[in-house]
Amino acid sequence: MNDSNPILRGEEAPLRDAYSRAGVDIAAGNAAVARYREATASWRHPNQIGAIGGFSGLFKLPGDERRILVGSTDGVGTKILIAAHLHRYGSVGADLVNHCVNDILVVNATPLFFLDYLAVGKLDPGVAGAIVAGVQGACRAHDCALLGGETAEMPGLYQPEHFDLAGTIVGVVDAEAIPDPARVAPGDAIVGLPSVGLHTNGYSLARSLIGPEEWNEPFPAAGEGATYADALLAEHPSYYRAVRAIQAVADVKAMAHITGGGLRENVPRTLPAGCKAIFEQSRWSVPPLLAELVRRGGLSLEERYRTLNMGLGLTAIVPLTQAAKAIEAVPGARVVGWIEARLPGEPPVVVHPGRSE
Amino acid sequence: MNDSNPILRGEEAPLRDAYSRAGVDIAAGNAAVARYREATASWRHPNQIGAIGGFSGLFKLPGDERRILVGSTDGVGTKILIAAHLHRYGSVGADLVNHCVNDILVVNATPLFFLDYLAVGKLDPGVAGAIVAGVQGACRAHDCALLGGETAEMPGLYQPEHFDLAGTIVGVVDAEAIPDPARVAPGDAIVGLPSVGLHTNGYSLARSLIGPEEWNEPFPAAGEGATYADALLAEHPSYYRAVRAIQAVADVKAMAHITGGGLRENVPRTLPAGCKAIFEQSRWSVPPLLAELVRRGGLSLEERYRTLNMGLGLTAIVPLTQAAKAIEAVPGARVVGWIEARLPGEPPVVVHPGRSE
Repeated sequence: MNDSNPILRGEEAPLRDAYSRAGVDIAAGNAAVARYREATASWRHPNQIGAIGGFSGLFKLPGDERRILVGSTDGVGTKILIAAHLHRYGSVGADLVNHCVNDILVVNATPLFFLDYLAVGKLDPGVAGAIVAGVQGACRAHDCALLGGETAEMPGLYQPEHFDLAGTIVGVVDAEAIPDPARVAPGDAIVGLPSVGLHTNGYSLARSLIGPEEWNEPFPAAGEGATYADALLAEHPSYYRAVRAIQAVADVKAMAHITGGGLRENVPRTLPAGCKAIFEQSRWSVPPLLAELVRRGGLSLEERYRTLNMGLGLTAIVPLTQAAKAIEAVPGARVVGWIEARLPGEPPVVVHPGRSE
Repeated sequence: MNDSNPILRGEEAPLRDAYSRAGVDIAAGNAAVARYREATASWRHPNQIGAIGGFSGLFKLPGDERRILVGSTDGVGTKILIAAHLHRYGSVGADLVNHCVNDILVVNATPLFFLDYLAVGKLDPGVAGAIVAGVQGACRAHDCALLGGETAEMPGLYQPEHFDLAGTIVGVVDAEAIPDPARVAPGDAIVGLPSVGLHTNGYSLARSLIGPEEWNEPFPAAGEGATYADALLAEHPSYYRAVRAIQAVADVKAMAHITGGGLRENVPRTLPAGCKAIFEQSRWSVPPLLAELVRRGGLSLEERYRTLNMGLGLTAIVPLTQAAKAIEAVPGARVVGWIEARLPGEPPVVVHPGRSE
């Protein structure tokens, strides 16, 4: 989360920074991560692998030579404010679980169990039950135990109808099955799996550009009969089965879950120092909601690729010769870019605009 | 959390329900737990042991005949509103970690790793860093990895200076070392470990009885120079080392972490059907803050023992003949009660008032 290199060639104008205007301070986020590194530098558990800041944390299972436990905690962001306002609680549980599943999937982990944290201003058992039922359904879809959770009623911290939802997943992976970005090499192909919308990131920006008075209005770009709410609440997909299908036919060297920070912040985590990722926007579609946010917010190329997923939910790097088989294995998968050698001073991620821009 | 039996002999008057007046609805909490049971009844992972509603969740480690992973998620409740108001962030991290450590300690689990969730209205890297440093320090004290976490900036959900903090711990225990309440028998002794205050429960009630204008005022009952803030923010202790010291000299048959719900809701989880727990209040001290809340709120016996820990942070049931050795092993530990046979219709927990009442 602390990659500060520019990613878009020819972009030198100051950022307009719509995200910051929406109240989310990415610089403060990076500064906080730096403080966390300071706070945690003095001691690390000997079984801990990798640093804070990855998609997930890895912990060598004591007394087991082979297996690694993988943990990740996440929330669904201010998407919940839209769900709460519209009293549509059906999908936030799946948003949460699927986000966490994808976060550990990029190190190839299989989910074991999940725990949720639900904080509310005023506890409505029906609402809480609907949310947890969604969590349970998404857990079951991954053969993942819903091991427990906490429901906290906190008047004074949350408005009566507001809530927050976070969760923690724990999975397991064989040490030898963890993708190693060091194997990524120039000439490899980048396979992209399509996103369906914002997933669980960028909602403060979205709410600043599309206000509550519009949420129930038609948004035909998203489909016949669709409203803005439908597009905004579209469920964060799990890429678990898609990735397993690709792995059955191709050697997946590295994966990135495209969440907050977009391609710019997430893809560099999957690259060795001598490689950069080239994306060609014309090779995939931008979901209508994201195109609308880009238009309304006047988001620069820089902003859109560091704030929104821009149509890619997960990227997987495979040898060029296996790319065709990989995309055949999953409907909607596309070859969206490739790996090139990176010279000193070059950015790790480059996005060529699509032909229509 | 769904024990609805009365616990206090001779208490038949309607509850005054100060907690409900403070905005926390225990009945709604129980109704929500019932909804969760419904939502989760249709499917359980075969490796999952025990039901939702315990102190923690248990999951048989695949491919390991012996070991069980134990997970628990919790928050620090509205104690954080006091910390935020006073800009005292040093202890909330330890509150969170120690609470979680105790929750898995009652099934005898050893901590492996922890993940935190910090949600803020406006991200202040210094504040976030101080909170995470506290989390890290408490993790280190238990040789527990801080494996990762999530920091979410959510304007619109949280006021700028407000934050929420939750966390998930994962530990491990040998199946044969999990305490079995079925072994608890009439004549066993209950050893109590002292609480230092509210720990992480009852803060909505406390804030309704002791307002912010008093927090920096002297509260001499809590010690020379102490303020209400000092008493309110006293750190939730970890009972890890105390329990291990007791286990070195006594057979601990069952343990309860006394959190929300007090003795009334927590101790029954450690009893077989044919047993009840008798507590004699005169055998231990009530911390001054809790006595003050009882006085100000006019809390009935019923209310105080279902809302506050009333001076006991953890209870451990041991054979009567080993009770003396157990309390010698830990400064401040006391024999606070005993187990008797429970007849049909009798409550599982009985508290005799102290001699002074």
